[in-house]
Amino acid sequence: MSIEGSKSNSRQRRLRLGMVGGGQGAFIGAVHRLVARMDDRYDFVAGALSSDPERAKASGAELGLDPDRTYGSYEAMATAEAARNDGIDVVSVVTPNNTHHPVAKAFLEAGIHVICDKPLCTTLEEAHDMRHAVEASGKVFVLTHNYTGFPMIRQARAMVEAGELGRIRLIQAEYAQDWLATKLEDSGNKQAGWRTDPKQSGPAGCLGDIGTHAYNLARFVTGLGCDSLMADLTSFVDGRAVDDNVSILLRFEDGAKGMLWASQVAPGNDNNLRLRIYGEKAGLHWDQENPNYLRFAPLNQVPQMITRGGAGTGEMANRVSRIPPGHTEGFLEGFANIYSDAAELIHAANDKRPADPAACWVPGIKEGLEGIAFIAATIESSHGGGVWVKPEA
Amino acid sequence: MSIEGSKSNSRQRRLRLGMVGGGQGAFIGAVHRLVARMDDRYDFVAGALSSDPERAKASGAELGLDPDRTYGSYEAMATAEAARNDGIDVVSVVTPNNTHHPVAKAFLEAGIHVICDKPLCTTLEEAHDMRHAVEASGKVFVLTHNYTGFPMIRQARAMVEAGELGRIRLIQAEYAQDWLATKLEDSGNKQAGWRTDPKQSGPAGCLGDIGTHAYNLARFVTGLGCDSLMADLTSFVDGRAVDDNVSILLRFEDGAKGMLWASQVAPGNDNNLRLRIYGEKAGLHWDQENPNYLRFAPLNQVPQMITRGGAGTGEMANRVSRIPPGHTEGFLEGFANIYSDAAELIHAANDKRPADPAACWVPGIKEGLEGIAFIAATIESSHGGGVWVKPEA
Amino acid sequence: MSIEGSKSNSRQRRLRLGMVGGGQGAFIGAVHRLVARMDDRYDFVAGALSSDPERAKASGAELGLDPDRTYGSYEAMATAEAARNDGIDVVSVVTPNNTHHPVAKAFLEAGIHVICDKPLCTTLEEAHDMRHAVEASGKVFVLTHNYTGFPMIRQARAMVEAGELGRIRLIQAEYAQDWLATKLEDSGNKQAGWRTDPKQSGPAGCLGDIGTHAYNLARFVTGLGCDSLMADLTSFVDGRAVDDNVSILLRFEDGAKGMLWASQVAPGNDNNLRLRIYGEKAGLHWDQENPNYLRFAPLNQVPQMITRGGAGTGEMANRVSRIPPGHTEGFLEGFANIYSDAAELIHAANDKRPADPAACWVPGIKEGLEGIAFIAATIESSHGGGVWVKPEA
Amino acid sequence: MSIEGSKSNSRQRRLRLGMVGGGQGAFIGAVHRLVARMDDRYDFVAGALSSDPERAKASGAELGLDPDRTYGSYEAMATAEAARNDGIDVVSVVTPNNTHHPVAKAFLEAGIHVICDKPLCTTLEEAHDMRHAVEASGKVFVLTHNYTGFPMIRQARAMVEAGELGRIRLIQAEYAQDWLATKLEDSGNKQAGWRTDPKQSGPAGCLGDIGTHAYNLARFVTGLGCDSLMADLTSFVDGRAVDDNVSILLRFEDGAKGMLWASQVAPGNDNNLRLRIYGEKAGLHWDQENPNYLRFAPLNQVPQMITRGGAGTGEMANRVSRIPPGHTEGFLEGFANIYSDAAELIHAANDKRPADPAACWVPGIKEGLEGIAFIAATIESSHGGGVWVKPEA
Repeated sequence: MSIEGSKSNSRQRRLRLGMVGGGQGAFIGAVHRLVARMDDRYDFVAGALSSDPERAKASGAELGLDPDRTYGSYEAMATAEAARNDGIDVVSVVTPNNTHHPVAKAFLEAGIHVICDKPLCTTLEEAHDMRHAVEASGKVFVLTHNYTGFPMIRQARAMVEAGELGRIRLIQAEYAQDWLATKLEDSGNKQAGWRTDPKQSGPAGCLGDIGTHAYNLARFVTGLGCDSLMADLTSFVDGRAVDDNVSILLRFEDGAKGMLWASQVAPGNDNNLRLRIYGEKAGLHWDQENPNYLRFAPLNQVPQMITRGGAGTGEMANRVSRIPPGHTEGFLEGFANIYSDAAELIHAANDKRPADPAACWVPGIKEGLEGIAFIAATIESSHGGGVWVKPEA
Repeated sequence: MSIEGSKSNSRQRRLRLGMVGGGQGAFIGAVHRLVARMDDRYDFVAGALSSDPERAKASGAELGLDPDRTYGSYEAMATAEAARNDGIDVVSVVTPNNTHHPVAKAFLEAGIHVICDKPLCTTLEEAHDMRHAVEASGKVFVLTHNYTGFPMIRQARAMVEAGELGRIRLIQAEYAQDWLATKLEDSGNKQAGWRTDPKQSGPAGCLGDIGTHAYNLARFVTGLGCDSLMADLTSFVDGRAVDDNVSILLRFEDGAKGMLWASQVAPGNDNNLRLRIYGEKAGLHWDQENPNYLRFAPLNQVPQMITRGGAGTGEMANRVSRIPPGHTEGFLEGFANIYSDAAELIHAANDKRPADPAACWVPGIKEGLEGIAFIAATIESSHGGGVWVKPEA
Repeated sequence: MSIEGSKSNSRQRRLRLGMVGGGQGAFIGAVHRLVARMDDRYDFVAGALSSDPERAKASGAELGLDPDRTYGSYEAMATAEAARNDGIDVVSVVTPNNTHHPVAKAFLEAGIHVICDKPLCTTLEEAHDMRHAVEASGKVFVLTHNYTGFPMIRQARAMVEAGELGRIRLIQAEYAQDWLATKLEDSGNKQAGWRTDPKQSGPAGCLGDIGTHAYNLARFVTGLGCDSLMADLTSFVDGRAVDDNVSILLRFEDGAKGMLWASQVAPGNDNNLRLRIYGEKAGLHWDQENPNYLRFAPLNQVPQMITRGGAGTGEMANRVSRIPPGHTEGFLEGFANIYSDAAELIHAANDKRPADPAACWVPGIKEGLEGIAFIAATIESSHGGGVWVKPEA
Repeated sequence: MSIEGSKSNSRQRRLRLGMVGGGQGAFIGAVHRLVARMDDRYDFVAGALSSDPERAKASGAELGLDPDRTYGSYEAMATAEAARNDGIDVVSVVTPNNTHHPVAKAFLEAGIHVICDKPLCTTLEEAHDMRHAVEASGKVFVLTHNYTGFPMIRQARAMVEAGELGRIRLIQAEYAQDWLATKLEDSGNKQAGWRTDPKQSGPAGCLGDIGTHAYNLARFVTGLGCDSLMADLTSFVDGRAVDDNVSILLRFEDGAKGMLWASQVAPGNDNNLRLRIYGEKAGLHWDQENPNYLRFAPLNQVPQMITRGGAGTGEMANRVSRIPPGHTEGFLEGFANIYSDAAELIHAANDKRPADPAACWVPGIKEGLEGIAFIAATIESSHGGGVWVKPEA
């Protein structure tokens, strides 16, 4: 598990990280900053956090950036950071899709590594140009198709590569949501707004936002290229400028076939990303909403439920798994909630002010004492051969 | 969601965090450090990471601590940090159970807030003494019963408090694992070793390690005190010095009854912590291995499946939820894996060395181009009224 | 599968079946008659269907019994049927618990085999007396602990007998319902009425009604006798005359331990009967609400999900399984619904009256034509290399 | 529930049922006979059970048919039964697809109602001809699309009809199996043989066998006709004469769209028939492998899990549901297994021969006594305020 690994990683210095986009009101920028802290391999030191210079400045201050490294434009940031001795090693590009291309290119040309949100950009022309820029720069370019980072997805790919499914016949991928079942973009919702505006998101709506995740995952796990596809795009919500439902028949290399469904208008689906792969010898099922399990069904044998970190998992999955089997990955977040509530209590104590009452649900000495009293009572009851005992606290 | 919240939190300075325990080979110390980074509210600056001074020093160096703040004993650390102007605000105590008492007390008496792993300590006498120390110090003391930090557990408590279950009748709690079904402590496994050694863990084995979590959770959600209990403890594995299975009948305040089962010898249970609460008006089910859902069954109505962040959740749950409904909390970890793999690629590029091949599964420009070609082909096929199209990449 | 088996079974003559109890308004009697028809091994020919002679007569007429064989009392029925050349081979006793003893005894003494609903009776004295009557008669006596007839329960027992779990350590049994969470017996509900009336059901309420099922199942699967138990019975509903919640700690032979929870006041539980067995080598989970699966977890191996009729099942399960894996046993009932709707349509046609509109949802020629048109259109589209085709019907 | 209903139904005489096909070695014929018995509305009295006259005769004898009514051909049967005063009311046609047309037509023309297995026939021409024959005869024609008989499918249709989903946008249907993942038809398997032989099954393989079920179900629940479809058929197994995988994009009336996947080569799928319907106001999910539940997700509200027979179900579902909520429909089959084992014990006793040892797992007086002793011990322990008690048996 990489919690252990994180210690040896720490022998390397932390990388200096900058960000373009991700200012006030953004969602994915905050996610990028959080996950960059998780394994302690990055320091966030610079940003052009908004295309509005005032908001960029305010956002930088709020995040504790040095004002000198809070930039009003990505161009200025690329130039200035490239010129510093302690300039950023890498930039995260978390702007709407339509600006990925110029932003990423500016940093690559400035000799700075790039981590870019998906989809890559909005047109094939931009995509080819970005490939040339990456190749010319010799810099690392990482695209955050984040589902490829799930341990059991890595496990699935390792099993396919090892031939455990035999030749692949079928790939069924789906990614369904419901949050755009009504015309949310008219309500002022920022996330809905840019995702349904072709000027910012490109010509693809649901297709680019989540369809590409499903496609990428199918390709990532099987390694098969797509030979041809047949699609039916729909905009179910009246007046919506982009597709909100995607149905595709796929033909892959080597005779494999597949179907891909992506939708943002399917009530009851929060974030239902699901991948099923069938080969001549076995089938695999993975479901993002229950991501720590991989169902492996070898033909004519009892189906197995492989657990993250458990028996049957290999190195490619285990190196990216932080906690033991059965502990959901929310383990770390539940734990982090305790730490954050503790921080509030400590600040309040230091500042001699009342703490946020919500933070007071955090367990403390009272709960600790209750636990010990529970242990003592249990032992007393059991050793007494079965007597009712009242815990002391 | 607190990802948004984390920005406003950042207006407060980060707290300076120290740690006792958690050196090389430890599990929970690394977890504490990771989760303390998650919301960016702590800086880890000092440690007495091992009771073995050499190992303490090596562990500190590995984690990038200032050598001046890498201590050989917790007593030295408490004294020195209390004397510094920039001394730690708070210490994490992540040692085996038997030393929680002296360590926590030393820091409390030095005027330093304490975050302490559970169970509180090993005897009722220690527990009472710790309570006095907390009260005398006026400092914050937080016990990391981390499951109380799960959003849907907070939701459950809020619903009970709001009377949605009516008067509580039944509490069924269980926490089953299988990792101690054989005598693992004889194999040199460090985790099994101290947990089954009464000198380090106290008289309770499974009872203290996981039984207290189940008990705490039952109490946390219902708010009911325990009137009396009747227990049957067993050590199924020959020669084991502590219990490895716990069966308890419980009687709570106000006439509620309950059962608690904890086991570390139940094959097929990784970390099966489950809580069911039944009142006069409704029932609630929560299962740690699928923690983003809370089943709410009002009597004689259709049962509901409440999703973290979704309809029916309230402020107490939502303030500790970082990502949208349907995104499992592994979302952040999958994302963090991408960032960590990216760090490896960037270091390798900077150092002109080959990158770890495992890190090369991270998506890059090739996958980005494929995604854009997929979008273009899909749009072309659909707009063409149904034609097979080959994606360009 | 015994659908095949039923043909060879039919070489034996059908047994003549009588019934005591099960008249108008009864639930379990109708179930007994239905399941007796299922494999075509019984003919229902005689009954004392109610202790009220008028109702007995009306019930017999409704069920098409020969009036000569519709009896006003079980005593008369036992005497008369024993005297006939074509008398019943076997009687089903489906009266309230308090009369099982005299009824069963009367038929045994008349030389007639008995199938009796559970629990056996209401007191230990009656139970011993019934055992003597069975032994003295030399007749077959079968108790309908029906859950022992589920294929995957038979599979579980076969696996325990074969040593696949090793020595058994733990048995966790539970059976939870919610239908008695309020004082339903005061509303005139017949089922609730006799079950909560100690005069009819005996001193045990929930304990006798469903607790005995859980206990029987634990014993059936493991073969272990109970050494001792420790119980806490509760009547949560004010004024209820019998228990409605049962919590028990169990100690079995050979050092195994267990817990048993039965409740009829747990909102959200329809009929949650669940059995978990843990041995030194493996664990088994079975859940009545998803009964076609048995989770088998060998220690330190990938858990397996054994499916009724699928790989890994043996003869003892397969002989009582009627349909292929993946077909839920509701397959037969869904199919039967089609047949029953068809019967209504045919009667209506024969009688030249309108059929029950509800029965008209049954598929007919229109749906058949649609299916064939669907096939034709699909083949045309696919063979055309991908063209949109409109089905003809 | 129709168990109650079956009593009033019995006021009508039982229909006389004949069968064509379904002789030795057949699967679906035995299913038809069993389900026809279930509600006691049919008597099976005549058959042309095989196209091989010897086998027809032997099969009839085995099933206890009068030799006079065991026919060597369906033509002879239609003529003879039409001429009898006590001739059959209705015939079940359970032959391979290619003979449905002539068989059904012969009986319709003889004035006999028809219950026919699906698919209707093998070509559109036959299908139209059958429609004409039905219309000309004025007889009832029922097609056993048996999944339309599941209570929760009826519930789904009733909810769509009541407008609870609003205007339908999306229909996702799938039906996946794995039993034909290898060339089973070469092994002598009779089921695989005729289903993959175009001469017997028609030009459609998987498409006709299970694809039509998925299509029928989508149409049954939504009531929407199909405007056009776009298909991709595959035969993955080398040398297979018919399709074994079906991928279809669908466009329905009123702007709804859909996808349909049917496969018989997807390892790990036993009988995975799943239907998801999304409207403007809500979504519905149904899964045949867990058929007693219907997930209903109204947009922006907490998703509900409707249980067969429970709160939220209506008359159209409840009239075809035989047992209470939470009891899986296997309840009846488990119960029937007890009855069949009892029959074996009784026959063995009557014949003074040893019973089949497998049947001896059926519970009897010993288990009954154990249950009563368990009750007595539990009451004694609980009333004693908590003492360990040994059950007497």
